Amino acid sequence: MTALQDQSTAGAGRTIISVDAMGGDRGPAAVVAGISRSAKKNPDIGFILHGPKAELDKLVARKKPLAGRVEIRDAQGVVTMEDKPSHVMRHGKDTSMWSALDAVRSGDADVCVSCGNTGALMALSMVRLRKLPGVNRPAIAVLWPSRNPQGFNVMLDVGADVRADEHDLLQYALMGASYARNGMDLPRPRIGLLNVGTEEHKGRAELKLAHDLIKSNADRAGLDFVGFVEGSDIPGDACDVIVTDGFTGNVALKTGEGTASLIGDLLKEAFQFSPLSRLASLLAFTSMQRLKKRIDPRRVNGGVFLGLNGTVVKSHGSADATGIAAAVKLAHLLSQSGFSHKLAARVASASEQVQDTATEQSEDGGKE
Amino acid sequence: MTALQDQSTAGAGRTIISVDAMGGDRGPAAVVAGISRSAKKNPDIGFILHGPKAELDKLVARKKPLAGRVEIRDAQGVVTMEDKPSHVMRHGKDTSMWSALDAVRSGDADVCVSCGNTGALMALSMVRLRKLPGVNRPAIAVLWPSRNPQGFNVMLDVGADVRADEHDLLQYALMGASYARNGMDLPRPRIGLLNVGTEEHKGRAELKLAHDLIKSNADRAGLDFVGFVEGSDIPGDACDVIVTDGFTGNVALKTGEGTASLIGDLLKEAFQFSPLSRLASLLAFTSMQRLKKRIDPRRVNGGVFLGLNGTVVKSHGSADATGIAAAVKLAHLLSQSGFSHKLAARVASASEQVQDTATEQSEDGGKE
Repeated sequence: MTALQDQSTAGAGRTIISVDAMGGDRGPAAVVAGISRSAKKNPDIGFILHGPKAELDKLVARKKPLAGRVEIRDAQGVVTMEDKPSHVMRHGKDTSMWSALDAVRSGDADVCVSCGNTGALMALSMVRLRKLPGVNRPAIAVLWPSRNPQGFNVMLDVGADVRADEHDLLQYALMGASYARNGMDLPRPRIGLLNVGTEEHKGRAELKLAHDLIKSNADRAGLDFVGFVEGSDIPGDACDVIVTDGFTGNVALKTGEGTASLIGDLLKEAFQFSPLSRLASLLAFTSMQRLKKRIDPRRVNGGVFLGLNGTVVKSHGSADATGIAAAVKLAHLLSQSGFSHKLAARVASASEQVQDTATEQSEDGGKE
Repeated sequence: MTALQDQSTAGAGRTIISVDAMGGDRGPAAVVAGISRSAKKNPDIGFILHGPKAELDKLVARKKPLAGRVEIRDAQGVVTMEDKPSHVMRHGKDTSMWSALDAVRSGDADVCVSCGNTGALMALSMVRLRKLPGVNRPAIAVLWPSRNPQGFNVMLDVGADVRADEHDLLQYALMGASYARNGMDLPRPRIGLLNVGTEEHKGRAELKLAHDLIKSNADRAGLDFVGFVEGSDIPGDACDVIVTDGFTGNVALKTGEGTASLIGDLLKEAFQFSPLSRLASLLAFTSMQRLKKRIDPRRVNGGVFLGLNGTVVKSHGSADATGIAAAVKLAHLLSQSGFSHKLAARVASASEQVQDTATEQSEDGGKE
């Protein structure tokens, strides 16, 4: 990969991140401001930026930290938040999103960052990058503020697909573990399977099957399986990775975000209530900033698409410069650790083993 | 019902609440303290209290507000948090939970309150109270702090059953609307169906069917159907009642609770960080108390079992006196409004209409 990356005009020896400049709610100016912030902090990152060249040239020229660090690839089309994924797959060849993914496909970059339409980005990623061998359903993983020492837990799938059978849930466990290993430096992540209770007899039938499947693969996959966990464990410390289907994960993610946002607003109201409480809010300012930083969704800005040939970091549509910089930071971390290749190897090896086990069981007269 | 209630020794003319004194994490003392608080605040409530008579006699005698307001029914057995529902159904005849439900079954009380084992309480309720005609799956509804003027939204099902088909979801919509009408004084509640996006083509197949079914019954049922909502709308103001299956609802409930609890703890930490922030916390004390009261789960303590012949309020297992008093308050409100009977009438009428529609469609050659 490094050899290919060196051929990019974005800078020899640098880790190259492919960035879709368009499609976010705040337009390309926020994206350029974000990558400029990243460039300033980290001299090892170079960018391939995708969008209308004339506009991007101007924006990039204004940012000193980006001098000599950005290759701009012209793409006139923009995927909007309203575009249907199926439409983008058929007619999106001229878009910045397509171009950004193709830079990963060709090997010019290891990781792609976009804050555009999630559905279209997932659909295009499937077509352009293709699924890893052994993966049936790719997943979107997010980081969630938690009581664990690392400050965050991984949850997946949060919306790539509304269904997941027991084999998909096993894949999610393997991919989530790989992400926690490379993105959070946890050598042996603890995996929990989301259910409505921690007892083994509870929940849906496919969850019981998934429980046994993950359990029997845990050792070989280098992970600790803690069994069933509940919604309260998503921000807890019972495990590092929460595995669930994309329907449940999406609802949980948005419920948590909504609850945090409601509490934040009520907190502001409480501090505005009386002169005394307004004074308190001044004194508490730095404490509150610290808390805000700890749970700021922009700091963990970046759902990661797992299970493809290459990694895609999906930033919030409303991401500002801080949010984009956080997504680039995550992309850089994953690129540097060789995450895509490690994940691919891990999934391939596990899927061989599952097949072996299935074959053995067949030979023993067991069920496949 | 009133005639029957008058026969109870707990006080003529009073609304009688049947209370299971046992099975909560804090024992009968917390329950008696809770009902004493309710009795003091509201002279219209009388209680039938279930548990070991000698122990309860002593606890009740110590509370002046309870003098002449409590009938104690002796029950020596206790359902523990570890007991399996199936075991309790077969061998639980001598338990306080069984006795508490039977007071509703016999008509001595309209509503039962228990902070015991949820699974066992639901299973026993099904057996002793039986499902309402037209209801396939009863549901557990909770109140959730929200941005709406009433301060709370209703969400159901949060865990009575892990499955729900489109007909169940329609029933949940009707029952949730009835609950919002009687428990929150909303004449025409807005109902939302929980999904991963608000577009009509998104989500699982049964949700699309439920969408159309609720939509076509909305007018007759006196509710506004706002269509699909997302997790972020659970604490929001897009609707008053969120309808979902018990698996998703349970995960959402616990995720929200866990997130709120994490933020609360981080807030405390932030205020302990420096002398300045500790001073700020003193000044902010009343503001914080106000906020805490607004989102205190104990204030909305009480999942309500809907779809049975009689209403059961399930209090948190860890409920203290404040929590028990909140559950009794809710039970009283529902009992006074004649909720059980209104709900039964509403469901019966809707189920006739659905059958009529089905018949009409059959006659027209449409699908049943």
